[in-house]
Amino acid sequence: MTSAPLTLPETIARDYGTPCAVVDLDRVDRNIARLQERCRAAGIANRPHIKTHKSPVIAAMQKAAGAEGITCQKLGEAEIFAEAGFSDILISYNILGEEKIRRLARLAQRAEPIVAADNPVTVAAVAEAARQAGRSLQIVIECDTGRRRAGVETPAEAVALMEAIKATGRLDFAGFLLYPPEGGVEGAQAFLDEATAGARALGLEPRIVSTGGTPNLRDLGRVAGTTEHRAGTYVFNDRMMMAAGAATLEDCALTIVATVVSRGGATRGILDSGSKTLSSDTGKLDGFGLIVEHPEARIHAFAEEHGFLDLSRCAAPPDVGDVVSVVPNHVCVVVNLMDRLVATRGGQVVGEIPVAARGRIS
Amino acid sequence: MTSAPLTLPETIARDYGTPCAVVDLDRVDRNIARLQERCRAAGIANRPHIKTHKSPVIAAMQKAAGAEGITCQKLGEAEIFAEAGFSDILISYNILGEEKIRRLARLAQRAEPIVAADNPVTVAAVAEAARQAGRSLQIVIECDTGRRRAGVETPAEAVALMEAIKATGRLDFAGFLLYPPEGGVEGAQAFLDEATAGARALGLEPRIVSTGGTPNLRDLGRVAGTTEHRAGTYVFNDRMMMAAGAATLEDCALTIVATVVSRGGATRGILDSGSKTLSSDTGKLDGFGLIVEHPEARIHAFAEEHGFLDLSRCAAPPDVGDVVSVVPNHVCVVVNLMDRLVATRGGQVVGEIPVAARGRIS
Repeated sequence: MTSAPLTLPETIARDYGTPCAVVDLDRVDRNIARLQERCRAAGIANRPHIKTHKSPVIAAMQKAAGAEGITCQKLGEAEIFAEAGFSDILISYNILGEEKIRRLARLAQRAEPIVAADNPVTVAAVAEAARQAGRSLQIVIECDTGRRRAGVETPAEAVALMEAIKATGRLDFAGFLLYPPEGGVEGAQAFLDEATAGARALGLEPRIVSTGGTPNLRDLGRVAGTTEHRAGTYVFNDRMMMAAGAATLEDCALTIVATVVSRGGATRGILDSGSKTLSSDTGKLDGFGLIVEHPEARIHAFAEEHGFLDLSRCAAPPDVGDVVSVVPNHVCVVVNLMDRLVATRGGQVVGEIPVAARGRIS
Repeated sequence: MTSAPLTLPETIARDYGTPCAVVDLDRVDRNIARLQERCRAAGIANRPHIKTHKSPVIAAMQKAAGAEGITCQKLGEAEIFAEAGFSDILISYNILGEEKIRRLARLAQRAEPIVAADNPVTVAAVAEAARQAGRSLQIVIECDTGRRRAGVETPAEAVALMEAIKATGRLDFAGFLLYPPEGGVEGAQAFLDEATAGARALGLEPRIVSTGGTPNLRDLGRVAGTTEHRAGTYVFNDRMMMAAGAATLEDCALTIVATVVSRGGATRGILDSGSKTLSSDTGKLDGFGLIVEHPEARIHAFAEEHGFLDLSRCAAPPDVGDVVSVVPNHVCVVVNLMDRLVATRGGQVVGEIPVAARGRIS
């Protein structure tokens, strides 16, 4: 009797156990190169958002391909990346509070942070960090161009914040942060044009106009004046990006290698990956992940360590002990759940990548 | 001008930054004592599930109060607790695959694990681990008494597994693992009675009959023959336990201290705690957490680092910079997102507790 050679997921299960996050670095290379070329063609700088990978190893690959600076969402992420030697760090988040001010001041000793603000409390906080650091700090104004997330809601509010920034005497107004909704180019343009006119009337010039999002790459550069783009998910991609038309299955570079650990009758099964591995942030898609080897199987519910399988549409359902690969619905929150990623090239394991900035929630 | 003294959440924000998980050890003490007394009164051993806290520090408090053994859901958790000196460890999960077999054999060198099985692949895997460890290993049969999670679906399947266990010559049949659904006592009793009769017919005696769940404490001991109970969430509690009638707000021992970082107009706000802090596992409750200081505010959606607030029902909505405490919907998945908990007693910070077993997903 001869056994079939092990598949790559089976090899990973044997050597690392499951569940295990596996990153195909060949696909990462392709994803990085493709975005970089799109940015180059559009004349827009690439400032990738590291929230997706939280790994200086992956960020170094983005930088080597041409990325100019990085984006972080948390001070804790920025600190890890500054320790790893990154300097040009946009923190696309309101920083405020005594503890964060102290940390921002320390960060400014070894990096060049740019902080986003949408309110006077953050402006005052960043100014106080500048005072503590004994240097000027860069600040951009986050503008709400339709998503109703963070951001000033009108150009007039942006102008009021610019006045507050000027009045501190310690801050360098650097420009605007936008996150236009899909199809929201016109609204973003009108907002930006009016805010830019307001800046110039104050003697300020926005040198950064930053747009964001992987699905928004279809509008890359369509807001005139854009200088850079912050995409995160593109580096790994996931089912949400596939559903948004921003990626194909072959662009998905991160999978969770999982094992079927139970079968209750003909149509039920349990995967050893539940909400603590694949995350309950499921993006309103049908099913909680795509099983590559059994695309007709459906992960229909989670417990913390169980992924509940509906196998009723499977002609050859997996058995207990079978190893599969799952493309997560939302990769950014999945990576955040684990300490390491196993890296492959050419179908071979080449090493482990620590998720260096995870677990630091503030 | 005199300022109001800082609240405890404000003190924590100043010293640790936000978001920050805070555990009230006085409440933990009360929760532990209350469960232990219920178990004592019912004559049922308490084998708490550590998935909720993943912390040997908290497990030691449970043990000191009278817990006999612990429950883990993953081998990675069991390894951390064995390193911390715990020995009597029930792993309520099917263990299988070469890598897990090797690890289970190593674990058996320094602890007394009991593994749950619902299929012959797991029975063979645990027997192989016993062979590698050069010792006998305890095994319990997981029975599906109505939740349609893991577990053999019929007493006849349980008997077949017992025969397989006997046939290995290396395993010590220890009993049955049940997780009856709420209101499922009769079904669980009928299943257990038939399975127990089957065991005796094979010359086996179940010395462990283990039930589980915090909401199920209302049925504690009502399945005749129960020897122990596995509750996890009771140690901290959360909004799901409140909704289930298993806890009051005063029983909720873990809160996320968070800061309002943005206000878009009169009725909108953003908390610095999104799906990477409070988790998208929201238990189908209305709202994604309870803001203790503003119970009429509603966290209606998450981005990864944003909690979106509907403040339309707030007479005095919080401002940017205000610090609040959030009771999470599902505390077990929240603790899993962070590396440390800040511990308080009597309204004072007394230390930090590492979430030792998180990040190890297999």
